[in-house]
Amino acid sequence: MALWAVVLAGGSGTRFWPLSREKRPKQMLALTGRRALVAETVERLSPLVAPDRVRISCGRPHLRALQRLLPELPAGAFIVEPAPRNTGPAAALAAAVLRREDPDATILLLPSDHHVAQPDAFRAALASAAELAARGHIATLGLRPTRPETGYGYIERGEPLDDAAGRATYRAARFVEKPPYERAVEMVAQGSYLWNAGIFAFRADALLGEMERHFPDAARAAARRVPGRAYAALQSISLDYAIAERSDKVAVVPAAFGWSDVGSFASLPEVRAGDVDGNVFEGRALLLGSRDCVVLAGDRPVAVVGATGLVVVDAGDALLVVPRERAQDVRKVSQALREMGLKKYT
Amino acid sequence: MALWAVVLAGGSGTRFWPLSREKRPKQMLALTGRRALVAETVERLSPLVAPDRVRISCGRPHLRALQRLLPELPAGAFIVEPAPRNTGPAAALAAAVLRREDPDATILLLPSDHHVAQPDAFRAALASAAELAARGHIATLGLRPTRPETGYGYIERGEPLDDAAGRATYRAARFVEKPPYERAVEMVAQGSYLWNAGIFAFRADALLGEMERHFPDAARAAARRVPGRAYAALQSISLDYAIAERSDKVAVVPAAFGWSDVGSFASLPEVRAGDVDGNVFEGRALLLGSRDCVVLAGDRPVAVVGATGLVVVDAGDALLVVPRERAQDVRKVSQALREMGLKKYT
Repeated sequence: MALWAVVLAGGSGTRFWPLSREKRPKQMLALTGRRALVAETVERLSPLVAPDRVRISCGRPHLRALQRLLPELPAGAFIVEPAPRNTGPAAALAAAVLRREDPDATILLLPSDHHVAQPDAFRAALASAAELAARGHIATLGLRPTRPETGYGYIERGEPLDDAAGRATYRAARFVEKPPYERAVEMVAQGSYLWNAGIFAFRADALLGEMERHFPDAARAAARRVPGRAYAALQSISLDYAIAERSDKVAVVPAAFGWSDVGSFASLPEVRAGDVDGNVFEGRALLLGSRDCVVLAGDRPVAVVGATGLVVVDAGDALLVVPRERAQDVRKVSQALREMGLKKYT
Repeated sequence: MALWAVVLAGGSGTRFWPLSREKRPKQMLALTGRRALVAETVERLSPLVAPDRVRISCGRPHLRALQRLLPELPAGAFIVEPAPRNTGPAAALAAAVLRREDPDATILLLPSDHHVAQPDAFRAALASAAELAARGHIATLGLRPTRPETGYGYIERGEPLDDAAGRATYRAARFVEKPPYERAVEMVAQGSYLWNAGIFAFRADALLGEMERHFPDAARAAARRVPGRAYAALQSISLDYAIAERSDKVAVVPAAFGWSDVGSFASLPEVRAGDVDGNVFEGRALLLGSRDCVVLAGDRPVAVVGATGLVVVDAGDALLVVPRERAQDVRKVSQALREMGLKKYT
């Protein structure tokens, strides 16, 4: 089995403003304090996937910056989307490109902006998913939920499949989009629901076959040697909506590997060590009588006095202060800046 | 009566870091959003005191900056303290200097870093104090307390004196230093206690007479043509301790004129207009879903999202974040910076 990986680095988000900007989205930030999330994602695949079998799916505006962040990858490792059309079209394009290179290609498809605390367990789960993929399934990892999170999608596991690499695996019974809180509590208590982390494994030809059934425009656009205009004309739609919720070939591999989607500044304490008062900080942060704060400073001193649960970020040319429990609202800042005529800071 | 004013601008404080620094203490900051507090203090005296009768008492390190902030005053308006020795010695020196210039000088002595919302009422109260001073009293303004403040000193009014400028005035019965909370509540309820704002009126010769009785070293040092070494050898002591609490000539003029000592960032809403959500801000402050915040930004955008009662200050080379109710603790930052080897930011 020839195992490939496609890391989806086309995303743009606004929840890490002022660190993230249009030209520097979240996956380019060293939010764990080490390398950019996208670089850690590539590192984490080794030794399961050889570096020469890793591909990065991204948009033209981010290509150069990603190449600088990933000097270990050759120029041919980057699959440039003609236009940002979400993960459905991106997966089709990557599958078409790799099938030309290797008609037997089995592909691991992964987000570029997540964190994994236990890489060995992560790779073992991917190996199980790859085994299901080799048997023709569209496999997805299902994370055991640890809280009634309303910001994630859930997958209900269905009938058992044969074990893959010594692990119990299942057909996917259904997908549930971000639920209301009460429904999330029920699903977590019920035990057969797993978090959808957007991590897939499939044979290139199997995915393209499902695309032809459920999203034929994407299959056709991806099959072109120069997909530009046909691709740009596609609907912007996630792989979950386009295929996973419709295909009868979807399997789920339950797993747990210290996963975090690093959804906002509030989640940094999940991926970085803090001090005895629960503060996570870098740079010239002065925390005086403060606890449970996230303070990202640079050379400039940032004094945080007598505060609890605050996020303070100095990005050099712009600053953010937000209570941790309101960190999701940071995405509103970009729009507000545009309305104030301050687009250059977005 | 020849009425003079001496504005005490020798203070150094650390509660407005990062705006205030060793070389730029609070009185030099435009905390009301208009001019530096010291400049507003001088402006506010007119027309009661002619500008050519205003003197600024200050230390050598602050002289040039104060001259720049007060271009309306001639070089001779600055009385330079040989060393910082608090308001007792500073008052003695100013009285000695002015008595040489005008043996009949009556002096209004004022802090340089307070705010007054009602300048007409303020000048009327000063006129009453000046009238008592002309009769030989050491007069002080007593502000009607509006809350059981534990950060101020209190003056108990004693037996009535003859009215001054149509206003009821009193002997001062005693001074109470910053009281515990329960005592403050009692004093406010009791009705005969007034806040001590450190604003005095006296004849130069009367003050120097009291100095000779209660603080003779200061009287002698101030009388020298070159007071340098003798002055530097004096105790550092406030005029309250040195004279007001000891002299039997002290009178008090009850008054109310929208006074604020602008004690910390938390008090800025007392001296600046806010928006409908109670936020006070300047510069590129983006307040999204925030209320009762004080945000002082410059050109750099400062986004404050979903916060209540926070102070955020961007001074360009350093930043502060503190909940309003902890704003007093800002004075601890300077020491922490020194301990971190970052004295240049103090």
